[in-house]
Amino acid sequence: MASPGSGFWSFGSEDGSADPENPSTARVWCQVAQKFTGGIGNKLSALLYGDADKPADSGESVAPRGSARKVACTCNQKPCSCRSAKVNYAFLHSTDLLPACDGERPTLAFLQDVMDILLQYVVKTFDRSTKVIDFHYPNELLQEYNWELADQPQNLEEILKHCQTTLKYAIKTGHPRYFNQLSTGLDMVGLAADWLTSTANTNMFTYEIAPVFVLLEYVTLKKMREIIGWPGGSGDGIFSPGGAISNMYAMLLARYKMFPEVKEKGMAAVPRLVAFTSEHSHFSLKKGAAALGIGTDSVILIKCDERGKMIPSDLERRILEVKQKGFVPFLVSATAGTTVYGAFDPLLAVADICKKYKIWMHVDAAWGGGLLMSRKHKWKLSGVERANSVTWNPHKMMGVPLQCSALLVREEGVMQSCNQMHASYLFQQDKHYDLSYDTGDKALQCGRHVDVFKLWLMWRAKGTIGFEAHIDKCLELAEYLYNIIKNREGYEMVIDGKPQHTNVCFWYVPPSLRALEDNEERMSRLSKVAPVIKARMMEHGTTMVSYQPLGDKVNFFRMVISNPAATHQDIDFLIEEIERLGQDL
Amino acid sequence: MASPGSGFWSFGSEDGSADPENPSTARVWCQVAQKFTGGIGNKLSALLYGDADKPADSGESVAPRGSARKVACTCNQKPCSCRSAKVNYAFLHSTDLLPACDGERPTLAFLQDVMDILLQYVVKTFDRSTKVIDFHYPNELLQEYNWELADQPQNLEEILKHCQTTLKYAIKTGHPRYFNQLSTGLDMVGLAADWLTSTANTNMFTYEIAPVFVLLEYVTLKKMREIIGWPGGSGDGIFSPGGAISNMYAMLLARYKMFPEVKEKGMAAVPRLVAFTSEHSHFSLKKGAAALGIGTDSVILIKCDERGKMIPSDLERRILEVKQKGFVPFLVSATAGTTVYGAFDPLLAVADICKKYKIWMHVDAAWGGGLLMSRKHKWKLSGVERANSVTWNPHKMMGVPLQCSALLVREEGVMQSCNQMHASYLFQQDKHYDLSYDTGDKALQCGRHVDVFKLWLMWRAKGTIGFEAHIDKCLELAEYLYNIIKNREGYEMVIDGKPQHTNVCFWYVPPSLRALEDNEERMSRLSKVAPVIKARMMEHGTTMVSYQPLGDKVNFFRMVISNPAATHQDIDFLIEEIERLGQDL
Repeated sequence: MASPGSGFWSFGSEDGSADPENPSTARVWCQVAQKFTGGIGNKLSALLYGDADKPADSGESVAPRGSARKVACTCNQKPCSCRSAKVNYAFLHSTDLLPACDGERPTLAFLQDVMDILLQYVVKTFDRSTKVIDFHYPNELLQEYNWELADQPQNLEEILKHCQTTLKYAIKTGHPRYFNQLSTGLDMVGLAADWLTSTANTNMFTYEIAPVFVLLEYVTLKKMREIIGWPGGSGDGIFSPGGAISNMYAMLLARYKMFPEVKEKGMAAVPRLVAFTSEHSHFSLKKGAAALGIGTDSVILIKCDERGKMIPSDLERRILEVKQKGFVPFLVSATAGTTVYGAFDPLLAVADICKKYKIWMHVDAAWGGGLLMSRKHKWKLSGVERANSVTWNPHKMMGVPLQCSALLVREEGVMQSCNQMHASYLFQQDKHYDLSYDTGDKALQCGRHVDVFKLWLMWRAKGTIGFEAHIDKCLELAEYLYNIIKNREGYEMVIDGKPQHTNVCFWYVPPSLRALEDNEERMSRLSKVAPVIKARMMEHGTTMVSYQPLGDKVNFFRMVISNPAATHQDIDFLIEEIERLGQDL
Repeated sequence: MASPGSGFWSFGSEDGSADPENPSTARVWCQVAQKFTGGIGNKLSALLYGDADKPADSGESVAPRGSARKVACTCNQKPCSCRSAKVNYAFLHSTDLLPACDGERPTLAFLQDVMDILLQYVVKTFDRSTKVIDFHYPNELLQEYNWELADQPQNLEEILKHCQTTLKYAIKTGHPRYFNQLSTGLDMVGLAADWLTSTANTNMFTYEIAPVFVLLEYVTLKKMREIIGWPGGSGDGIFSPGGAISNMYAMLLARYKMFPEVKEKGMAAVPRLVAFTSEHSHFSLKKGAAALGIGTDSVILIKCDERGKMIPSDLERRILEVKQKGFVPFLVSATAGTTVYGAFDPLLAVADICKKYKIWMHVDAAWGGGLLMSRKHKWKLSGVERANSVTWNPHKMMGVPLQCSALLVREEGVMQSCNQMHASYLFQQDKHYDLSYDTGDKALQCGRHVDVFKLWLMWRAKGTIGFEAHIDKCLELAEYLYNIIKNREGYEMVIDGKPQHTNVCFWYVPPSLRALEDNEERMSRLSKVAPVIKARMMEHGTTMVSYQPLGDKVNFFRMVISNPAATHQDIDFLIEEIERLGQDL
């Protein structure tokens, strides 16, 4: 079985090590076999893949690279043992893979070897002894490796190396100590679902070409609307390419609902429109207003209290001001889970004001929406059921792989009439099935990526109670962090009180600054601490957490926890690491 | 080795068949082994996976499903053979997978079994004896299977079944006889790259969390600009979620470039703007105008000649009309490859007019951009180098998995200043690396899916010459189809002359209509032919091709070829199938 290779296919000569430069079919399996079963696993590996101690012989084949472009399988002359066959990718090109004649075998081998590279990465992702990031500066990375695109093809050996290299320099966003963004973690069922989505390689615009995914989108959006609290889950919605676009949809719908003529006649035909959102809201509201021809000046930022919640009396005051000027308030976007503080605007009070002045109420729950899955925490979104539209990103707090963002709309039909253009080449009216499932015309996009399957499959696998357990755990970890640092020497909290979401905002004050008076010089020096610690974290690759200034507050750390892999020990580690890296500052 | 299972892990008892209801690790491998090596492969399968003739014994385990939630691995008592171990997924839940303690082994087994399901699907995709689609009406599909989401989790056995069921009802968009959309085919390197992208699970907004992907976007966009013909590949660009959004970006940039105050002050501060595009252009231009507050009435549709190309004199006439009214022409969107006819607008003439009247010239080459890779066909886009912006979707003619759409911009910086909002929590100005690589603020989106890697990896694998070969082949196939049907009884071409792109538009006229006079009744009956044939195609699952009416032309077939798997025989098959399914109409 372990005979030397002959031509394009060679046999055996696999070691069981995890050398990332030399992936091999089933090597990951061997590692695990060895881990779990000791000598037996080793022997099995040797049996399956040749002498486990013998290094791979790379000098077996003598034909020059790239000189052959077609599979010349030698199986008929020399029966191969299939799974244990080692393919010599230096002789293979993408043109040898399916749909090429005889492409099945090299295709399966190639895809399996890619998979082994991915499985190694998955296993490493959760291994605390590996780095979160192998950081290189942009210029270094550009120089260290040839990334350029050329006229000539590369062989599959080189393609596999590119996969390894790309992952070598990737950030392990699922690593238990990666806290850098609102989206962290790597869910195994979600990952599997995303692989399947890639393999199905289709498009959401019609039932015709995405029957199951269209139905799953229907089922999933309905369930989300039920959880929001709309009777019977009625209403509308869409999975959009991210929270910023979901928020833009809300703005678009609010405008159209009030002035449907805007679709044909543009903003010239309508009075000056004004939107309201808090000073802590996400920047996408302004981005949307700029794009939609409303203008950023027409987005009024409402004051927040010291915990980052919109002050309803200020909202009402500003609405009245705008109306006095003869402008038209058309949208209030309340935030459920602000980006930095994790604050929840008082939705019930906002809803009362929107009702009073007949304004479309949007809730940007991109970050906080996940809390609706928790019986313990959903009270923080009380009043969300009174919104006209809600942005909810399962790719954030619910740990669904990127991207997965939903815009939910209370009123059915408004999305369709706002956006439809009746393209007759896609939405033929004489198809043989129920056309209400051709949902593409309510989107701003034409082609639309399938984002629903990973959420749906994770939901089946975890159940609502599984998401609840995840969310409760993350919030408990945030409280744990808060309790550790609130009275710890060298820490100052940016806001008082227990965290409402998993955001914990704090300054680390190095020993050299602790005795200083609270003046401008201290602020100036403190503002430089977080960036330096963050840069050191990345250079060491041990952990990652975000920082930023906000209003009159200089750079502080914003810890967020959405990673299912994180534990109390990882929180402890973060604190110790900040102190280790920052004590000399 | 083939001892009966005990508890959560069982051993052996694998048959080598391709029963889709019962996936198994490495079954696909066994299939291939048997195919290529006959008896040897069979014996190997038996050695690896137990007696190949013995059916899997499903009665081995007696514990009730779902009763256990944690792995209780029996490896220590009974050494397992790892790769040949069959996991009893009825006892496992997602909570048993990584990052769970001892989650490594069930995770690798689960992901490998998912992969085997995917590999089976890949192999079937290219098998002409399988159906393109196993069609079910929406209500049937909703009733046949329980898709609902519940509070309680399901075990991994059920999750694997969901994967199979989802693929069972999926459209095989890579099938050699799937011609339904502009995006067809399933590229193996692109697929591998998309799996890797899912596994890396990150976001394009900063270099900090996507170092390699940000660099690859830079390299790839630059290369695409070079191919467009902009000196040194200079300029700007972004990968956006589809061609409709890319076109919307172009409109946004054109408006901002002319009236930068629109960003803050909205459309109220600018004169009435008018965009021009052909009557055959994509509906996304109107969709964009509606969204951007310009209004669909301000999109003037320019007449096309009989082959679907914009008539430059009509464009100039309409521009002058608009100017006389005191409105401001701000954008001309020429189309390079229209959706239905595949027509190329005369870009050089359009460029002259845009220059004369100082209007932003956009080229929507979503469909036709791929022809830039072909030395034989790129002349059809002559003048594209004079555009201010270009939409080019590699997920169409270049066969990159969905989604992959680029918007290329000639002038650097305008995107950034148009869209940036300076969010301080993402784009900190005191980071330790070159901030020009934090490209997220030029996007409309905040989070942005990584769409570049599959294009980049395919480009490395195929080289520019590989894309060229693919495109030349598809265009040759379209000409082959044209040559077959242009004089064949029962066919009428919608437009005269050889196809410029791979679009071939034709009516199939059943025998019963052939003798009829060319009057309204005939038109009315002819309009019903394509929908019925299409419905029958889907019910039989043999092939799929699109149809639509256009202007005064009743329903006709629009054949497009972007699928690398398609051959002359598949074109022959399509014709025969249309005749078989339509002769009685």
